[in-house]
Amino acid sequence: MRAVDIIQKKRDNIELSSEEMTFLLGEYLAERVPDYQMSSFLMAVYFNDMTKEELKTFTELMMNSGEVIKFQGINKFLIDKHSTGGVGDKTTIALAGLFAAFDIGTAKLSGRGLGHTGGTIDKFEAIDGFVFPETRDELVKMVNSVGTGIMGYSDTIVPLDKKIYSLRDVTATVSSIPLIASSIMSKKLAVYADGIILDVKVGSGAFMKNIETARELAKTMIDIGDSFNRKVVTLLTDMDQPLGFAVGNSNEIIEAIETLKGHGPEDFTELVETIVATALEIKGDVKTLQEGKEQVAKAINSGKAIEFLKNFIKAAGGNPNLVDDYSLLPKHSGEIVYRAKESGWISKIEAENIGKAAMVLGAGRATKDDIIDHSVGILLTKKVGDFVEEGDSLAILQHNNKNVESAINFLDKTYTLSQEKVLKNKVILEIHSNIGL
Amino acid sequence: MRAVDIIQKKRDNIELSSEEMTFLLGEYLAERVPDYQMSSFLMAVYFNDMTKEELKTFTELMMNSGEVIKFQGINKFLIDKHSTGGVGDKTTIALAGLFAAFDIGTAKLSGRGLGHTGGTIDKFEAIDGFVFPETRDELVKMVNSVGTGIMGYSDTIVPLDKKIYSLRDVTATVSSIPLIASSIMSKKLAVYADGIILDVKVGSGAFMKNIETARELAKTMIDIGDSFNRKVVTLLTDMDQPLGFAVGNSNEIIEAIETLKGHGPEDFTELVETIVATALEIKGDVKTLQEGKEQVAKAINSGKAIEFLKNFIKAAGGNPNLVDDYSLLPKHSGEIVYRAKESGWISKIEAENIGKAAMVLGAGRATKDDIIDHSVGILLTKKVGDFVEEGDSLAILQHNNKNVESAINFLDKTYTLSQEKVLKNKVILEIHSNIGL
Repeated sequence: MRAVDIIQKKRDNIELSSEEMTFLLGEYLAERVPDYQMSSFLMAVYFNDMTKEELKTFTELMMNSGEVIKFQGINKFLIDKHSTGGVGDKTTIALAGLFAAFDIGTAKLSGRGLGHTGGTIDKFEAIDGFVFPETRDELVKMVNSVGTGIMGYSDTIVPLDKKIYSLRDVTATVSSIPLIASSIMSKKLAVYADGIILDVKVGSGAFMKNIETARELAKTMIDIGDSFNRKVVTLLTDMDQPLGFAVGNSNEIIEAIETLKGHGPEDFTELVETIVATALEIKGDVKTLQEGKEQVAKAINSGKAIEFLKNFIKAAGGNPNLVDDYSLLPKHSGEIVYRAKESGWISKIEAENIGKAAMVLGAGRATKDDIIDHSVGILLTKKVGDFVEEGDSLAILQHNNKNVESAINFLDKTYTLSQEKVLKNKVILEIHSNIGL
Repeated sequence: MRAVDIIQKKRDNIELSSEEMTFLLGEYLAERVPDYQMSSFLMAVYFNDMTKEELKTFTELMMNSGEVIKFQGINKFLIDKHSTGGVGDKTTIALAGLFAAFDIGTAKLSGRGLGHTGGTIDKFEAIDGFVFPETRDELVKMVNSVGTGIMGYSDTIVPLDKKIYSLRDVTATVSSIPLIASSIMSKKLAVYADGIILDVKVGSGAFMKNIETARELAKTMIDIGDSFNRKVVTLLTDMDQPLGFAVGNSNEIIEAIETLKGHGPEDFTELVETIVATALEIKGDVKTLQEGKEQVAKAINSGKAIEFLKNFIKAAGGNPNLVDDYSLLPKHSGEIVYRAKESGWISKIEAENIGKAAMVLGAGRATKDDIIDHSVGILLTKKVGDFVEEGDSLAILQHNNKNVESAINFLDKTYTLSQEKVLKNKVILEIHSNIGL
């Protein structure tokens, strides 16, 4: 078997056999097939897509390129909620309280932020003393006691994805549906969960810019889930503006807490309720999403959700009192109100620019080695559909006297106002699943 | 400028600027753009083609990546005839006599054979004492005195093509019309000739398997010629069977000589006459191809062509008497007649298998380091359209007791016979040019 013949077959749109896929990826991982052959193969995939069968084999080979983990001794129903990355996405923080309230466990690997999107691990680290499990035993113990166990990604999980992703990044083969789907799903499948909920962000601030390709990605990931007999629900959610009001680290912790207290932003609350309701349906505790959402509302209103979040923070080494005393979180030194330059209805808030504004203030990383300032960020005061008068506050820059002008420059490119009434964005755009949702 | 953005543009079918092309190819040649980026770019070109403007820039950059040669002091009208490679193609040998007879010069670089196709330089080396010019001065002197000067390709001519071709070879990006066209034309343009005649072989024994892609390649090369104000004629010629009867080295020299004596195979004679007539048209000596062909016939019948070939052989260090005494050429020790296993009209002679049969006998190279046995080869006795009785001779294996069985195995896969009458193949399929032919 020769790599060049396999590339040619893909180029000519002929389905590859399992043996051919195994040869190509195995030899690539072993560095006997060079990058220049893999990159031309990936470009051929970009143009010719993959068949369902190819995609299954490809994902399986990716998954099996490293450790496949099923944590032993977990006594909870496991849900892995994964987001494709957005601005202001503090969902995992809120879910830490809510999933636990419903005896749902999360045992997952999570990433740090890069560029205009933040990472869950970074956000939790805004909490003084907070540490993540470092061993599997610690993680299992944490899941069993407080519901949520999150570890950083390790190089031993799907190493092939890491190798292929680095190559795609420099060869213009990132935006290929089968490659994105298999990259995400191989990592989800490599760490066992009873159900997988995928939050596919759609819009100018997301990787998927339009609903059609997001839908295609969602369906492709569900197909892969089917191939592995795993329950998969994908939510297509709005990223044509940031999620909620807070973009940063401390401020996102606060917003997640407020949401569990029942004072969350409308869009973020809706998203969290929908995700938890979806998890309850996968688990079989409710019959409809509506029933699930009502139960979630109850768990919030009764104070149960916030109690479980406190348990989690305490178990992770943080001070649980911070949920009632935000001064225990890192504090920025200055605030600037960013004001509307004209009157009108807000029709667009370019999420990517808000993410970049927060990043330059110090809330995110421009490069892998940057150190995060958890206290700074952007706090929106208005969202799409709101009317503002000239001079009204649009957002607050929470800063530590670093790169304030640069952040303002990003904000200057962020807002579009309309003289005609604009409706609010819907946060949940579509739901697809292989469990009949 | 970043290579990844240029690859993405090509992937998205947006025309690249001259600056972008220059950056990509320049950085690649300087090894600052790695193979894995170039190979994904080439695959994107495979799918999205190149615009006329891109192709011009690409070819120009290829051409200018090394030496661009215009031999000084040549007193002849220069024609460069190039073939895309076939089986039994001894055209350059015959042209050495005929071009000189019409005071047309050829100053060109030529290759050695690899795989099932032979190389002109190898064929001439069947002649004892034959040496090629090693310096430009020697070449110019030879062109001026006997018309034909051929040197081996040097690494200093279009080094970028060599680098890109090696990469295409292992990344399934060889069969891309713009890449083939620019590869051929950059080399033709790098060494000056007044007119370029491209013999594009078409058929199962050629790189171009069908007339449609061959036509596309021909037109693309003419377009490139236009961009550089060069006269280009492309002949699409049959390679659904070997050219002439002889496939090897000594035997091809003999067949070329016989042709100049007026006893050549019908198809080969037709091809040679057409090429020389085309050259006469480009030069402006005749008004129609027919007129040119008549002049060629005269040069053959008068003995002029063979005299000029003798001059050429003598100038190159060989013994010119060999044109009348073939025993001066290397001689094989054994012959086996390969016979028809049934009766019928020959409908197909798989040229590639004849080439491989000759190669295993020793006439060609399976790998670059193989040493050629000039005496062996295959001599066809019948061609497509001929009727044979079971047991009639189809071909003669001229061998030196090496790999005879293996050669016979190739011949066993070569012939298709039909019970219905089959017409002879036409050798000249189409002519395209930018000079109104």
